[in-house]
Amino acid sequence: MEKGISQAVVRRMPRYYRYLRDLLEQGVERVSSNELSKLMKVTASQIRQDLNNFGGFGQQGYGYNVRFLYEEIGKILGLDQTHNLIIIGAGNLGQAIANYGRFDSLGFVTVALFDVNPEIIGKEVRGIKIHALDELEVFCQNHKVDIAALTMPKQSADNTAQRLVELGIRAIWNFAHVDLDVDDESVVVENVHLSDSLMQLSYNIVKNKQ
Amino acid sequence: MEKGISQAVVRRMPRYYRYLRDLLEQGVERVSSNELSKLMKVTASQIRQDLNNFGGFGQQGYGYNVRFLYEEIGKILGLDQTHNLIIIGAGNLGQAIANYGRFDSLGFVTVALFDVNPEIIGKEVRGIKIHALDELEVFCQNHKVDIAALTMPKQSADNTAQRLVELGIRAIWNFAHVDLDVDDESVVVENVHLSDSLMQLSYNIVKNKQ
Repeated sequence: MEKGISQAVVRRMPRYYRYLRDLLEQGVERVSSNELSKLMKVTASQIRQDLNNFGGFGQQGYGYNVRFLYEEIGKILGLDQTHNLIIIGAGNLGQAIANYGRFDSLGFVTVALFDVNPEIIGKEVRGIKIHALDELEVFCQNHKVDIAALTMPKQSADNTAQRLVELGIRAIWNFAHVDLDVDDESVVVENVHLSDSLMQLSYNIVKNKQ
Repeated sequence: MEKGISQAVVRRMPRYYRYLRDLLEQGVERVSSNELSKLMKVTASQIRQDLNNFGGFGQQGYGYNVRFLYEEIGKILGLDQTHNLIIIGAGNLGQAIANYGRFDSLGFVTVALFDVNPEIIGKEVRGIKIHALDELEVFCQNHKVDIAALTMPKQSADNTAQRLVELGIRAIWNFAHVDLDVDDESVVVENVHLSDSLMQLSYNIVKNKQ
């Protein structure tokens, strides 16, 4: 596939996907970059540039076929395949992710949660079992696991990430408030640092007051 | 304060803050941009450039005073003041945010949750009451509210955001899977689109396989 596409472009693709799905649901069959531009509040030239990274998809004077573009972007984002997800840390955040049906519809299927708290081990969230963290190795050897979400305290995140990498897991969705020390370049790490996002918000509050 | 600082720079500041706190906790008193560079895995010149946006803070041949830099970045990020937070949507995600003590220690104090589900209205999360969403107006008129976190389904997010803006709330931390239609430029919106983050992850998984 396309090499050397910047992560900034990639980061914008899910938003296109979201808007195209809305258009599809509204029964819209084609859309011009100008129309998409008004909807998404980005310039039409940005849209054309972004999509040209992946080969274009548009036709002069016709615009974009909504379903085709939606499906192509889905393929680019790997949404044409199923990804099995495990969640390490079955507290509120872990349970929120397990409960969020929309991830399923995008092909991200939670297959297990793990925790160290004996009070919740053995319980289920939306029919998905909470395992003891000790069972991580056995579980991963017997099931296909594509992504591990870390929703646990930062103290044990690095150690757990290391265990996951040794188990051959190629993608970590990290919510722990730490930059994981994963040296293996074949492992993809995507961070969701909620405190960072809150600080960004508070910076802009202070700036706006001035 | 500094005008025209790019959001990309601002987005990196919480990470500096995080590393400086770790250094402080380890008793480190000063740090050079080269040392910080190794720790944070960004170039020393990037660090100097970033910090120069806010006036520098460093001294040739001495480096940075860790506590001073930590406190200054805290001020830049507005962490020297308390921000009262309300959470709209007291499901798992809302409760996860309310339960997360670290936000408190950064000065983000959750003062109320709101929901439409009669089964949870009146209950408490970490001592913080879940109110009926109908009480939003009265609550906001009688309490100082700085930030509203939207952890509710996207269908009602736009409408709720509008109510919040009319109530004078200046900052929205949006977890709903939609770009809010907030036209008022004095309102700061920070989005956390978890599905987008998961799609970014899956893009990189697919790319790595090739």
